[in-house]
Amino acid sequence: MQETRLDTDRIRAARRVIDPIFLDTPLYRCEALEPGLGCAVSIKLETANPVRSFKARGTEVVASALADGGGSRAVVCASAGNLGQALAWSGRHRGLDVTVVASRFATVAKLDRIRALDARLELVDGDHEMARERAAAVARYDGIRLVEDSLDIETCEGAATIGLELVATAPSFDTVLIALGGGALATGVGHVVKALAPGVEVLCVQPLGAPAMTRSWRGRRVVTTDSTDTIADGVAGRRPIPAVLDDLLVVADDAVLVQEASIIAGMRLLLDQAGLVVEPSAALGIAAILEDRDRFAGRHVVTIVCGSNVDVDAYRGWVGAGVRH
Amino acid sequence: MQETRLDTDRIRAARRVIDPIFLDTPLYRCEALEPGLGCAVSIKLETANPVRSFKARGTEVVASALADGGGSRAVVCASAGNLGQALAWSGRHRGLDVTVVASRFATVAKLDRIRALDARLELVDGDHEMARERAAAVARYDGIRLVEDSLDIETCEGAATIGLELVATAPSFDTVLIALGGGALATGVGHVVKALAPGVEVLCVQPLGAPAMTRSWRGRRVVTTDSTDTIADGVAGRRPIPAVLDDLLVVADDAVLVQEASIIAGMRLLLDQAGLVVEPSAALGIAAILEDRDRFAGRHVVTIVCGSNVDVDAYRGWVGAGVRH
Repeated sequence: MQETRLDTDRIRAARRVIDPIFLDTPLYRCEALEPGLGCAVSIKLETANPVRSFKARGTEVVASALADGGGSRAVVCASAGNLGQALAWSGRHRGLDVTVVASRFATVAKLDRIRALDARLELVDGDHEMARERAAAVARYDGIRLVEDSLDIETCEGAATIGLELVATAPSFDTVLIALGGGALATGVGHVVKALAPGVEVLCVQPLGAPAMTRSWRGRRVVTTDSTDTIADGVAGRRPIPAVLDDLLVVADDAVLVQEASIIAGMRLLLDQAGLVVEPSAALGIAAILEDRDRFAGRHVVTIVCGSNVDVDAYRGWVGAGVRH
Repeated sequence: MQETRLDTDRIRAARRVIDPIFLDTPLYRCEALEPGLGCAVSIKLETANPVRSFKARGTEVVASALADGGGSRAVVCASAGNLGQALAWSGRHRGLDVTVVASRFATVAKLDRIRALDARLELVDGDHEMARERAAAVARYDGIRLVEDSLDIETCEGAATIGLELVATAPSFDTVLIALGGGALATGVGHVVKALAPGVEVLCVQPLGAPAMTRSWRGRRVVTTDSTDTIADGVAGRRPIPAVLDDLLVVADDAVLVQEASIIAGMRLLLDQAGLVVEPSAALGIAAILEDRDRFAGRHVVTIVCGSNVDVDAYRGWVGAGVRH
C-alpha cells in the first residue's frame, strides 16, 4: 500500500487514550435488513454512547494530548454538531476550555447538547465552511489550539480505531460502506482496512447534494462547490482538504453519490427493520445499496452507523409518513 | 446474602459459552434523559445484537449444553417472542432442531423473525400461559428438551451475565431498574448485584396490567391472575414460578407497578432524548422514574434496555403522535 498520513501503530496507540465507553462498539449481522437489500448486511453501531456518534474517538485523542501536554488548555473547533459535542464531552472530562463554532442552521439538538456539555458555542450566519473560517480566526486571535476535523491527524486516528475493530472481529466482509464528508472516517477506516485486510473493498458514500470530496476523488484534484443541498448535515462540506484527498486517493476503492430520497429510504429501513434511529449521514451506506442492488448482490457488506443526533420533529417528518416497504 | 438457585462462579462460566456478540453491551450515561427524569441515568443496552434482546445470553447457555451433550438435539420453548427468537438463533448456529410455541396474539415482528431463523413455530389460540402448557405437552410427547424461561437455571445464568458487566464497569450506581416478567432477568441480575455490589438497590418494575409476580413478591407467596392487560407483551405472565419467586424474595429490594401511560411516555422519552427504539418492556424502568421522581431525585440509576422488537405500526401509534415533552 502507498503511504498515507496515517500509521497503524499510532492508531493502536490511540485506542489506549480513548475512554473505553467509545470503543468495541456493537458489530452484528442484521438479517432483517437483508430481504430489502439483497445482500448480507452487518452493522457497526457508533451511536450507543454519550455523544451518539463516532466523533469522540477522535476528540479523546485530541483532548488527552492537550490535557497531558502542559500547555494551553483551551481549544476551538468548527463543527456541524457532532465533532463539537464530542470535543465538549472529552474536554469537560479533562478540564479543558472548549469553544465550538457552528452554523446557525445546524441541527438544533446538536447545538443544545454542545451547550449542555458546558462548551462555549458561537454561531455564524453562514454554512459550515464559514464556521471553519471563524474557528481558525478565533484560534489565531486567542492563540489557542484549533482542531480541524479530518486535517488534524488525531481525528483520523480516532476514527481509524473503528477499522481495527472491523478487521479484528470479522475479516469476512467483502465491502465496507463509509459515509464521506471531510474524510476523517473514510481515510482512517480505509487506511486500516487496506493495511490489514486489503481484499476488502473500501466504498465511500456521499450525498449528491454535497459532492465535493467525491468529485475531487474522481478528478484526483480538489474540486469545490458553491453550495450544498442535503439533509445529511454531518457530511455537507464544500471545500475538501488537499492532504485528506491525497489519503483518500490511496485508500478508497470507489466513491459514489446518492440521492436524498435514498437517504430517507435508508433511514426508514434502519428504523423499521433494525430498530435504529440514525441521522441522515449514517444512512448513506444503506442508500448506496438501495441505489445499486446488483452491485452488492451476494456480497457481505458492513455499514458504519456513524451518528444518531437528529432533531426529533425533522426525523419524524423524514421517516414517519408516506411510503412503507 | 441468603442462598438463591444461582451461583456466581457458574455465571462467570456462562460467559465463556455465550457468543461474544451478545456480551459486553454498551453501558453509558445518557444526560439528555436527565432533565426529564430528575436523576442521573445510565443505559445498559441489550438491543444492538442479531436478536434485539438480552434473551440470547440465556439461550446460548442452553444451546451450547445441548449441542455438547451428545443427546437429543431437539428443543422446544414457549415464548412471547424474544426467547423464541433467541433460541432459534442459538439453535441454528449449533444445528439444533428448535420448536417455538407462542400465542397467536404475539407481536407479529417477533413471530416473523422466529420463522426467518428456521425454527418451527406453533401458535396457540390463547395467551402466553397456554403456550407454556402446550410447549410442555410437546416436550413430553416428543421426548425432547423443554426450555422453561426463568425456571431453567441457564436462562437465569445467561441473564445474570448482564449483572457481571454492571458491577465490573460501574459500581457507582445507587439503583438498578429491571423489567420483571417471569423473573430470569430480575433474579439473575439481582443475584450478581447483591453478591458483588450489595449496596446497590435492586428495583423490579412490572406493568399494573400484569402484576402477578409483583403481587407474589409483596405477599411472599405465589399470586396468580386471571388475565393480563398491557402492551408490554414481554412480561405479561399470569402464573409465577414458585422457585423463581423464592429467589426474587432474596435479591429484590422492591417491586413496583407502573401504568400503561407511563410505559408509553418512557418509550417516547427514550426515542426523543436517547434515540432508542425500545419495546414496551424495555421502558418499564423509565416509567418507574416518571411515576415517582422524588424517590430517585439525586440518585444514579441504571436501567436495562432489554429489547427492541416491536411491530412498526404499533410502535408508531404509541410514540408517533400526541404529547411532546
